[in-house]
Amino acid sequence: MLKFDLPTKIFLGKNCIKENTNVFSLGKKALIVTGRSSAKKNGSQSDVEAVLNSLNIDYAIFDQVKSNPDIPTVYKGAETAKAEHADFVIAIGGGSPMDAGKTIALLACQNIAPENIFSGSYQKKVLPMIHIPTTSGTGSEVTPYSILSNHKAQTKSTIATPLIFPTYALLDPAYQKDLPISITINTALDALSHNIESILSMKINPLIAQIAQSGIKQIGDCLTAMENNDLTEAVREKLQYGSLAGGIAIAHTGTNIVHSLGYSLTYFRDIDHGRANALTIAEYLNFIAKTAPEKVALILNDMKFDNISQFKAQIDRLLGKKEAFTAEELEKYTQIALKAKNINTSLRAPSESDVLSLYKNSLL
Amino acid sequence: MLKFDLPTKIFLGKNCIKENTNVFSLGKKALIVTGRSSAKKNGSQSDVEAVLNSLNIDYAIFDQVKSNPDIPTVYKGAETAKAEHADFVIAIGGGSPMDAGKTIALLACQNIAPENIFSGSYQKKVLPMIHIPTTSGTGSEVTPYSILSNHKAQTKSTIATPLIFPTYALLDPAYQKDLPISITINTALDALSHNIESILSMKINPLIAQIAQSGIKQIGDCLTAMENNDLTEAVREKLQYGSLAGGIAIAHTGTNIVHSLGYSLTYFRDIDHGRANALTIAEYLNFIAKTAPEKVALILNDMKFDNISQFKAQIDRLLGKKEAFTAEELEKYTQIALKAKNINTSLRAPSESDVLSLYKNSLL
Repeated sequence: MLKFDLPTKIFLGKNCIKENTNVFSLGKKALIVTGRSSAKKNGSQSDVEAVLNSLNIDYAIFDQVKSNPDIPTVYKGAETAKAEHADFVIAIGGGSPMDAGKTIALLACQNIAPENIFSGSYQKKVLPMIHIPTTSGTGSEVTPYSILSNHKAQTKSTIATPLIFPTYALLDPAYQKDLPISITINTALDALSHNIESILSMKINPLIAQIAQSGIKQIGDCLTAMENNDLTEAVREKLQYGSLAGGIAIAHTGTNIVHSLGYSLTYFRDIDHGRANALTIAEYLNFIAKTAPEKVALILNDMKFDNISQFKAQIDRLLGKKEAFTAEELEKYTQIALKAKNINTSLRAPSESDVLSLYKNSLL
Repeated sequence: MLKFDLPTKIFLGKNCIKENTNVFSLGKKALIVTGRSSAKKNGSQSDVEAVLNSLNIDYAIFDQVKSNPDIPTVYKGAETAKAEHADFVIAIGGGSPMDAGKTIALLACQNIAPENIFSGSYQKKVLPMIHIPTTSGTGSEVTPYSILSNHKAQTKSTIATPLIFPTYALLDPAYQKDLPISITINTALDALSHNIESILSMKINPLIAQIAQSGIKQIGDCLTAMENNDLTEAVREKLQYGSLAGGIAIAHTGTNIVHSLGYSLTYFRDIDHGRANALTIAEYLNFIAKTAPEKVALILNDMKFDNISQFKAQIDRLLGKKEAFTAEELEKYTQIALKAKNINTSLRAPSESDVLSLYKNSLL
């Protein structure tokens, strides 16, 4: 069954905020959800504030979202939304503010106990949202997911509900002009992983495969440029497109093994989310190639690689020196990964020893 | 600027109606909008009625939609919707019932004078809709367009508003198992034209181009099968996908020259809409190739043709004996085509003599 469901209206291009100001008339008072600094430095927040001022739309700011936001943060944001009587949310930043913004929009409209927050059972009430990504990685602006650090389960867990699709996504690659190379690489490899995992998911369909493939091609075009730190406007645009494509793709298929394996690397070792995925992506291709060699070959071809080794070497050059792990750590992470919801949705389901091997071949 | 807006939730696959009955809980009473016979013969209408009965949802039937529906028909349908207190619409059939269903859903909620029906200015009120295509051509199930015969302007005119995007599109290729070969060919060539015109539109963007290209490939795969009347289940599925892709594509770019030229052929000579488009599509490629040869080459390559002549020969074989036209007729049609809204949105805008040449090279 081919399914497609993407209610978010998307605008991608230079000056898309200034050229689509009508989008911001979503309500009477906005809560801007963002991090402490990047949206201020890259100009996105002031552009949004200028539009809101020009439209006489009131707003409050919640700029306390850190990387890998946790449950207390989103409750605090929701309290702010309620106290300020905000009737819509504008999330600006990377995956962290965008994911936090979604759950804040949900919690602002209904009481959910923290222990039920990942239950998937919510009332049909949520504040409408505008998402403005300022990295090219997460694709959160077009997904029904909000991923939060879950200290109780000692991992990252996902709130998944169509309720939290943003109403609008506005993507202006110009905000990434000065994005540091390390963040550029990590986020691009996250987006690449979204597209690849989507194509190699059991849930893939021909329409989504087309979109994911186009994302892989566009990001593939940028791998050498990132290695050379040659981040032109054209490269930024391709990466932003690749991230959008990856978001649309995982909105329909979810992620699978790579993300399941990555969560522990982030949770326990504070490794950036995109980098965590990139560390295992090449071995993941080796693993899936046993079941679906033609699909893996297509993915490699889209990036102009002849084989997985070439791809792995490219990823390794982008990642630089890798973190050291012990066998004990990887055994612990294996147990956690096996419990992840999305571990069994790839074209090949991994056994416990498969997961351990994926970790070991990637990281030891 | 890349824009994407497709609020319709899509399900494509065998038994998609029976497997997604929850979709039908859109309201308390449905108005089924369809034609007189095909939805009854192919089983789609009885499947829908069975689901509604199983859910205890009341319904009324308006089955008076003929090919190329006109304005009196949609007003009559809207009167039925009001009289029956229907709060949602289920449109079943080819482009005619689906297009009529959209305007009926609009007129059921607001008073629009017939002379203002194409104005584009409507209140934000419309009945929610489920669209169930039983041909693979129009793509109307995923577009914001309703095309009606406009006797005053002596052509077909378009109601275009995001209000009339269906809420759900359910596409089961099984309903086309016994669709006659002539309708199969005409509708498939309409869908092919949607995908091609979209790629060759000024409004194209990379995301939509991917989708349109996939539509061209899938329909291209079926051209020989249609010529041989070898319509397997796999062929039916590809055609349905190609039609869906074309609908998504034109929802974002509109159609352009081919459709502008086709309307008079249908209006004055009663030539089927898809056939009318197919009659000029090859010359259209010749015309655009002067401006964008690489894009035309890509389209031909997607269908595995080396050049436009090969493509034209294939289309000619599918169309069979062509209608005869006089130069006077084509001069009249040229004047009408030049007034069409969509004539100037292709990569190359045609002059009056270009339009006349397109007609003459195609039809004389």
